[in-house]
Amino acid sequence: MADKDFVKEIADIKEDFPRWYTDVVLKTELVDYGPVKGTMVIRPYGYAIWERIQRELDDRFKATGHKNAYFPMLIPYSFLTKEAEHVEGFAPEVAVVTHAGGEELAEKLVIRPTSETIFCEMYSKWVNSYRDLPMLLNQWANVVRWEKTTRPFLRTSEFLWQEGHTLHATAQEAEEETLKMLHVYAEFAKNVLAMPVLIGKKSEKEKFAGGEATYSMEAMMLDGKSLQAGTTHYFGQNFTKPFNIRFLDRDGTHKYPYQTSWGVSTRLIGALIMAHGDERGLCLPPPVAPVQIIIVPIAQKKEGVLQKCRELKEKLTASGIRAEVDESDNSPGWKFNQWEMKGVPCRYELGPRDIENGVVTVSRRTGSEKETVSLTEAVDGAGALLKEITDAMYEKASAFMQSHIRKVKTLSELENAVNSNCFALAHWCGNRECEDKVKELYQASTRNMPFDQSGAEKGKCVCCGKKAKHIIYFGRAY
Amino acid sequence: MADKDFVKEIADIKEDFPRWYTDVVLKTELVDYGPVKGTMVIRPYGYAIWERIQRELDDRFKATGHKNAYFPMLIPYSFLTKEAEHVEGFAPEVAVVTHAGGEELAEKLVIRPTSETIFCEMYSKWVNSYRDLPMLLNQWANVVRWEKTTRPFLRTSEFLWQEGHTLHATAQEAEEETLKMLHVYAEFAKNVLAMPVLIGKKSEKEKFAGGEATYSMEAMMLDGKSLQAGTTHYFGQNFTKPFNIRFLDRDGTHKYPYQTSWGVSTRLIGALIMAHGDERGLCLPPPVAPVQIIIVPIAQKKEGVLQKCRELKEKLTASGIRAEVDESDNSPGWKFNQWEMKGVPCRYELGPRDIENGVVTVSRRTGSEKETVSLTEAVDGAGALLKEITDAMYEKASAFMQSHIRKVKTLSELENAVNSNCFALAHWCGNRECEDKVKELYQASTRNMPFDQSGAEKGKCVCCGKKAKHIIYFGRAY
Repeated sequence: MADKDFVKEIADIKEDFPRWYTDVVLKTELVDYGPVKGTMVIRPYGYAIWERIQRELDDRFKATGHKNAYFPMLIPYSFLTKEAEHVEGFAPEVAVVTHAGGEELAEKLVIRPTSETIFCEMYSKWVNSYRDLPMLLNQWANVVRWEKTTRPFLRTSEFLWQEGHTLHATAQEAEEETLKMLHVYAEFAKNVLAMPVLIGKKSEKEKFAGGEATYSMEAMMLDGKSLQAGTTHYFGQNFTKPFNIRFLDRDGTHKYPYQTSWGVSTRLIGALIMAHGDERGLCLPPPVAPVQIIIVPIAQKKEGVLQKCRELKEKLTASGIRAEVDESDNSPGWKFNQWEMKGVPCRYELGPRDIENGVVTVSRRTGSEKETVSLTEAVDGAGALLKEITDAMYEKASAFMQSHIRKVKTLSELENAVNSNCFALAHWCGNRECEDKVKELYQASTRNMPFDQSGAEKGKCVCCGKKAKHIIYFGRAY
Repeated sequence: MADKDFVKEIADIKEDFPRWYTDVVLKTELVDYGPVKGTMVIRPYGYAIWERIQRELDDRFKATGHKNAYFPMLIPYSFLTKEAEHVEGFAPEVAVVTHAGGEELAEKLVIRPTSETIFCEMYSKWVNSYRDLPMLLNQWANVVRWEKTTRPFLRTSEFLWQEGHTLHATAQEAEEETLKMLHVYAEFAKNVLAMPVLIGKKSEKEKFAGGEATYSMEAMMLDGKSLQAGTTHYFGQNFTKPFNIRFLDRDGTHKYPYQTSWGVSTRLIGALIMAHGDERGLCLPPPVAPVQIIIVPIAQKKEGVLQKCRELKEKLTASGIRAEVDESDNSPGWKFNQWEMKGVPCRYELGPRDIENGVVTVSRRTGSEKETVSLTEAVDGAGALLKEITDAMYEKASAFMQSHIRKVKTLSELENAVNSNCFALAHWCGNRECEDKVKELYQASTRNMPFDQSGAEKGKCVCCGKKAKHIIYFGRAY
């Protein structure tokens, strides 16, 4: 197959970004559609990315004092109703189990859409004294939210995620946890996904159902739309009171603890695809790439070539690099295209002449030149090369995001910004009416309010022109 | 609290083994009951064991060429019915989703009780040529089987497991996979759980619903009962035909591939508790113990004691040992009991006198003597010590199992054996009637047929006295 035909397999990224996305996720075998509408099958190439994400995050959660646990997936329907906003937010999208073991159940059960209620139920049994606090648990689990419009990784009926649920003796400590985990997420996004994010506080309208405050990290996709890539929530005592979680404090009185939760999901895979991809397909950040270096043998039937490739692979593997040799009987050109589409960060070519000269031809997925390095350097320098690629991907994505943020003062500037695939950074009065109006007029929602709010009250609301309270990002979003 | 009171918290292991088990799993905070009947919450101490089990098994699966994937949890009810024995086996215990997103569903969905059907559905899309085989996938997931009688870890409505699902071009290759994975499980049981197992083939009655052959590893619990700790199944083409999975073979004809599946679950945690525990509580095998060495400071308020304990912990951690210092304000005696009940394999005591002499007092959970070793040896020798403990636990469990297996020739010998908490190794004619009769008379089921069947046809059936076909283990079981 010629190079051009191969690229034709995926839609033009500039002409039809949504189809480019669907083509890429299906053709690189990251994912497939499940038989039940809205579900996805995460195939080995996609799941390997998720495993890397899990390992990296899990290490960070443990380093910040959290432990993993596993709570039941089936929750009595009545639990949802204990917090009024919570049931209003989640009841419309739950999947309901009415029969089990051949009988109709006395009480309907829901498959967890999120687990605040069942964590609280158990915490009410486990927490008695200030000595039991803070309670710092996380779980890796599947959740189900019945969605009308679905897309692989971005929005599916079932998805995989982690959900941290913590309890603290004081409001201050819980608020600190909420911000600490937001920063853990942002650091992870930068260093592991090579993805810059905007962190800040959500508006009242966009916060978690039942929470006091929600913080998010928003990533900019290549079409200028925002993808909410992770959230952390502060609940105050909104759940601990109805679930009657109380602890005996040092001062001898009973108190309700303060709560947080925080989560990221398989959505992150969608985020990194749309933050880094290009016309040739995926570009995977080295820290999560299932294959970091693909070795393509040239004239592989010539004696010694395959053996040398395998030796190189073994040396790379021994130094902690995920490397593979493509030994299939496809042509080198076909292999180049294949592995480029699959987003492998780095390619090593090795043929008879290279072997003679003791060198390897190196190409980066993100660049167009090839360079020749010694075999020794190809092994010893591989880690540094991958780090360089990661850093360059982050810099490129950051430059893209920075060049697609516009400060706007009027509605028409805002319209212009979002129509030009930009986020609009604007002053806002804080009223829901203005937020709704912008959404209705330009399909742009509030994303979040950056922590630096200096000068917020000096401006005027982009929508109503009244005295502003906040600076906030508006953008179209996934 | 005095030592004796403390031990009283758990039932006497010799007098009431079932209550001992329940007391131990609850009081050591491995697990708690979930709000929905039959569900469990795996608490951090229990989940940390599961994480070790997962890591160890996952490494073995990958080393044998398998990759992980994730398939949807919700399966159309109609899928179950495609294989007649399969639906008969699983339909009575499925949980059924009838409503989702506020509407009644057109087709009922079941929460996976196991995933053969949905793997087959996807495989029918993915497999086209012999080049696509073997297909070697595994998934880590939750499953739901509605059970009438439940016990934490051993039998719960929802549990965690892994399920491997593979396709092969030939029957021989699939049969080899089925046995290979059985041996992977048995090696894991020995080296990671320090648990000896009996491997062999299940009877027709006891095999997986829809399979051709099931193999199991059976572990002996301290009450002489058997716990089926893992199974591997050979399916032939039983599923590939109804799901129409076909591949174009090298010879240019279309063929149905041959299939296997294999799984172990959180049940393994129950198994290791009942294989190694004692009157003081848990005894955890070092490879899965969340804390391998607990450091108990003596006279911890004396200057320098805690600091020295923390240094020791840091050194152990740096050499890959999971160590902790108990800095709580409980007495040393209370701490000793606490950590013994929690099954920590090794305890280091460190007080002012030890520090003066540059030594540590070492006790093994499985022994009663203390020994004094130099601080250097306490760090450098820790890995070897833990390995020694693991090996000793395996030897002890093996000796127990071997002394609780009796070769029997008559029904009364069989009765005697199972009443004496033994497995009975017997000749069997292979007929279901005899199997059922033994079960009815003595509540003992067939466990499995060891691979060494030499002399099988020379004996007579333990039940009917007719010419035997097999040698098989009978035993009471969980």
